[in-house]
Amino acid sequence: MDTPYVAVDLAVLRANIAAMTDATGAAGLSLRPHAKTHKCAQIAGMQRDAGAVGLTVATIGEAEAFAAAGFDDLFIAYPLYLSGTKARRLADVAASAAVRVAVDSVEGAGAMASALGADRDRVEVLVEIDSGHHRTGGEPTRAGEVAQAARDHGLRVVGVFTFPGHGYSPDARMAAAHQERDAIAAAADALAARDIEPRVRSGGSTPTVEAATGDVLTEVRPGVYPFNDAQQFHLGRIGVDDIALSATATVVRRAGDRFVLDAGSKVLGTERPAYVDGFALLPDHPGARVVALSEHHATVETTGDVPDLGAQVRVVPNHVCITVNLVDELVVTEGGRAVDRWPVIGRGANA
Amino acid sequence: MDTPYVAVDLAVLRANIAAMTDATGAAGLSLRPHAKTHKCAQIAGMQRDAGAVGLTVATIGEAEAFAAAGFDDLFIAYPLYLSGTKARRLADVAASAAVRVAVDSVEGAGAMASALGADRDRVEVLVEIDSGHHRTGGEPTRAGEVAQAARDHGLRVVGVFTFPGHGYSPDARMAAAHQERDAIAAAADALAARDIEPRVRSGGSTPTVEAATGDVLTEVRPGVYPFNDAQQFHLGRIGVDDIALSATATVVRRAGDRFVLDAGSKVLGTERPAYVDGFALLPDHPGARVVALSEHHATVETTGDVPDLGAQVRVVPNHVCITVNLVDELVVTEGGRAVDRWPVIGRGANA
Repeated sequence: MDTPYVAVDLAVLRANIAAMTDATGAAGLSLRPHAKTHKCAQIAGMQRDAGAVGLTVATIGEAEAFAAAGFDDLFIAYPLYLSGTKARRLADVAASAAVRVAVDSVEGAGAMASALGADRDRVEVLVEIDSGHHRTGGEPTRAGEVAQAARDHGLRVVGVFTFPGHGYSPDARMAAAHQERDAIAAAADALAARDIEPRVRSGGSTPTVEAATGDVLTEVRPGVYPFNDAQQFHLGRIGVDDIALSATATVVRRAGDRFVLDAGSKVLGTERPAYVDGFALLPDHPGARVVALSEHHATVETTGDVPDLGAQVRVVPNHVCITVNLVDELVVTEGGRAVDRWPVIGRGANA
Repeated sequence: MDTPYVAVDLAVLRANIAAMTDATGAAGLSLRPHAKTHKCAQIAGMQRDAGAVGLTVATIGEAEAFAAAGFDDLFIAYPLYLSGTKARRLADVAASAAVRVAVDSVEGAGAMASALGADRDRVEVLVEIDSGHHRTGGEPTRAGEVAQAARDHGLRVVGVFTFPGHGYSPDARMAAAHQERDAIAAAADALAARDIEPRVRSGGSTPTVEAATGDVLTEVRPGVYPFNDAQQFHLGRIGVDDIALSATATVVRRAGDRFVLDAGSKVLGTERPAYVDGFALLPDHPGARVVALSEHHATVETTGDVPDLGAQVRVVPNHVCITVNLVDELVVTEGGRAVDRWPVIGRGANA
């Protein structure tokens, strides 16, 4: 196959899905995987078959892609502002699937209800709260005000959710999980105080999910776990053998202790948080470090052997969600042999 | 239109293309724009109409896309290793277009010739040299050895090229341009010493092109200049009004001096070199800084007014080549009104 291409090891993928299903089940949590990671109907199907209660998506476009592929329970975990054709598109998705949407402010609740108009009863609403990531979501203790406003506008509020994204740090992972639990508990209380039942209490991310328990949360929404990536490895959550997705690249130059691969930022992405060493991970070359990444080059320094010109090398991206969104299909492998190709049905579905 | 989308201001695009055409013409240089930036037949056509001698591309896939769109003079500025179907694909492109390829080592020259076999006379070859960026390309003074090896293998060597990528720094920009010139001069001498005429002496990048002159170089290959981006602004090469491409995003949350936009790394990319302030540039909000970027969120802090919930905001990416590769089409605007949509024909063509 011509490089670079992105491949998924089916055995590792299956094991990762089974392990998360087992762990969340044992913790008494429903699993609603975030499909923004894989954007792939076959993987969503494996998750559903393993017992996932539905899918999480980030955009209406992703919801459209998965609804068209037959998935009928979708949570768009994003405080949408429904301008342009978005209200109509959302209502169309809700005609074939159970759809939950997010609001995170009193003003946003009014805008959501106004844009949906008569279609407002087609969706359920979760109030997004901030558990420490400081992105979207309001104060947990004020979730009641938002929920009340949404209800007053005729929206059906069924609970609360948060994303503990500040758990993407080796030192903060468990603390973020505890903040998530406390924030969800406070927000649930705030809804209950206004006689709005917080039936759904949704949290979770791949780094924090192992500390999530069913005493406060009802469901979790990890995304990365089917594949894993270099971030998860450097977070200490997994071993190299738990990584199911990698790009395959060719050595196009070798000189001294350096070599250059034909996989760059246009297939790997360029995220590099402080806790990650290098721009990607070379699982079969332990002494190697990706010291620079341009659009079509990964520059590698190694303390080990320099592979031959033309050799093919597996490259694990730092953040797999970015990589998948850069390709049209995933090559599926079993025992190192390509057995299938799966289309990335949500690629580029940002709106 | 539903946000986020990526728009190109036609008047600014035309002015940028005209200015680069004029400047390179005045310097006595042929212009061979890098099409990896725009991946768009309409823009390549404007560049050709303005006098570009051909296009530069980074991959065989990009060459295929532009050859299919009728462009008949293509330089693949990358030291390809022709495994898989690449040799056949390259020969097919060379059947409808004049094609130049790159080699940067004696070993690579042999591999290129061997993979092309009887098709080796369909392409011209440039020897890539390193002028300080330390990525691909060998020592300038050893370019003669590489050229000789290529010629001995039956390849038609017509010159040398380099990419002064280390000019992407405000302090290094002009120094890199001078290193480029010196390296090309040394490499050209090394070819001439072996009776191989260095007819083509190709350099240039958007940050360094203004210091390129026709005394040593014959052509330049800037890519970013039709659009420009936040990097070019922070490099001091352009003003904000010279930026032709931006994403349009919607304010989905506002709180205090912060707001959140619905354009994230899946439409903007995440590059952030040290000389760039923030993850993107908001040209209409001078006091605003993008302090965090996740897949579908840009978190902004501002010393100015916080725009209304639902307001639409222009967001200029740090590195435009990455942004274009994330969308299927560019919305073309004139006087702020959408007048056309251009497909990104080379999107994802990494192989």
